[in-house]
Amino acid sequence: MSSVNDIYPSGSHQVTFREVSLRDGLQQVQEYPSTEGKHAWIAQGKEAGLRHFEVGSFLPPARYPQFADVRDLINFVDQTDDVFSSVLVMNERAIFDAVETNVDELVCVVSATEEHSQANMRRSQSASIDLILAACKARKSSAKKYVIVAALPMSFGCSIAGDVPKQKMLNLVASCLEAGADVISIADTVGFASPLQITDLARDVVKLCGKVPVIIHLHDTRGLGLANAAAALDVGIHIIDGAIGGLGGCPFAPGATGNVVLEDLVFLCERMGYRTGTDIQKLIDMRQILAREMPDELLYGTLARAGLPSKIDWGS
Amino acid sequence: MSSVNDIYPSGSHQVTFREVSLRDGLQQVQEYPSTEGKHAWIAQGKEAGLRHFEVGSFLPPARYPQFADVRDLINFVDQTDDVFSSVLVMNERAIFDAVETNVDELVCVVSATEEHSQANMRRSQSASIDLILAACKARKSSAKKYVIVAALPMSFGCSIAGDVPKQKMLNLVASCLEAGADVISIADTVGFASPLQITDLARDVVKLCGKVPVIIHLHDTRGLGLANAAAALDVGIHIIDGAIGGLGGCPFAPGATGNVVLEDLVFLCERMGYRTGTDIQKLIDMRQILAREMPDELLYGTLARAGLPSKIDWGS
Repeated sequence: MSSVNDIYPSGSHQVTFREVSLRDGLQQVQEYPSTEGKHAWIAQGKEAGLRHFEVGSFLPPARYPQFADVRDLINFVDQTDDVFSSVLVMNERAIFDAVETNVDELVCVVSATEEHSQANMRRSQSASIDLILAACKARKSSAKKYVIVAALPMSFGCSIAGDVPKQKMLNLVASCLEAGADVISIADTVGFASPLQITDLARDVVKLCGKVPVIIHLHDTRGLGLANAAAALDVGIHIIDGAIGGLGGCPFAPGATGNVVLEDLVFLCERMGYRTGTDIQKLIDMRQILAREMPDELLYGTLARAGLPSKIDWGS
Repeated sequence: MSSVNDIYPSGSHQVTFREVSLRDGLQQVQEYPSTEGKHAWIAQGKEAGLRHFEVGSFLPPARYPQFADVRDLINFVDQTDDVFSSVLVMNERAIFDAVETNVDELVCVVSATEEHSQANMRRSQSASIDLILAACKARKSSAKKYVIVAALPMSFGCSIAGDVPKQKMLNLVASCLEAGADVISIADTVGFASPLQITDLARDVVKLCGKVPVIIHLHDTRGLGLANAAAALDVGIHIIDGAIGGLGGCPFAPGATGNVVLEDLVFLCERMGYRTGTDIQKLIDMRQILAREMPDELLYGTLARAGLPSKIDWGS
């Protein structure tokens, strides 16, 4: 287990990626990788330079078999040097479960709209804030020193409630910080944002958060994932979620692409002059694990087709 | 035939698209649409709000059968109100051919590197500048008042020669302007650019061009097409090339995606607050023509899968 500074080292020319395939990526797929396949995923990801893996969620295995091995994966990460595990928590029970493990990071979900909160979690926004308080309380009374992330889906517009006013978002972020969140994650869950919205909201969130790290979580549902990532970098967000091959879809747009494609995202960052510490070709090679474990799953991304540029000095 | 101001009306909140499927899009495909299919393309594109169509190139029909009907298409556009035709010219012969037609715009190719110029056109950069002079001369001595665009492939790096120094590019743009080009088009032909390079070069090109309109031509070879478009908009470029379904590949990266996907590009622009005068759903519907005329061709793009956002006010 690690402190916020261990997990998210600061540095204006450094970008940190959170690989979310094993959690967000597995929410919409039709077949699931084996636990061995997930181990290979983490090991090969580490080899490629990745450090953060969202490994699942504490949910009933009968309904969510893709996350049944979440404890095993936390242990696997715990026994691997220099990598961090993260899990999603949607209720108090999950916090009790998490405290029994050596997970590095708990991601507490606080929807940007009351409507999505009820539809997605069957709990109010206010009850979601209570989850952050509960995670803080559990940490205080145990030896476990996990990092607490407040993750805010639908930050840039909600497929149920529509537009989300900026001041409402800033108030919600303030409430999460007040409740004790160590990190704030703003999410374009359904691909509604453009660089204009990213710049507008993210700039103020970064300002409000001060030294608290801010993550951006982007879906490429409507093709603007990388354009939005570039806008987020420009306003000082240096922690970005992604999934190799763009794994995962969108529950509100069947057939649509999922998370922003991590290997393409790393290329963007390198080509924009940021250090990422990753080997893009090795990231591209990780797609073979997906192809083997989930042969029917459609993978996205352009670098895997086009290859890295030759002849120019594009980055690492 | 039309003046520069007719074709490219200025306005800081307006974006003009050039649909390049019938020229750039057909350079890499394995099967070609019928002339009737191309007529339907232009007619349906106009219905969707498009005004500019690159309709082909004057090249030997035996070697380039996809452009054999270029004169027919120029006539078709000429007989349609409020749309403009554009053709690529690669040699003096093409200028003589063009002057015989009622084409609205000649696109003279001037490669950013000597190496690509020789490989692509078998002529030097200096001989390519001469092409602009020849186009100006032909216009002066005829009643035809076409617009002359200088199009600069590999502006952001060359797959043969590597990096292209900015000052070299600015000198080349200055030479094109001096030779008489009415419009400058800078192109990321092989998807090497990131928003950083776009901002860096495009800002200075726009400054150098003053009142001369600047076009940006982007390929999505490495996924950064829309991110680069957003960067171009930010530095004041309001004329952008695109192809419905991202038609066309990359001669230097087999299997890679082609031109930036026009329907996704329009969504980006609308979501960034620009007026485009187009109906995105009708643009998406144009893919049916491609699917009918070129059934084996892979089409790209996200909006066609995900659909336009509901619940939020995303643009037009």
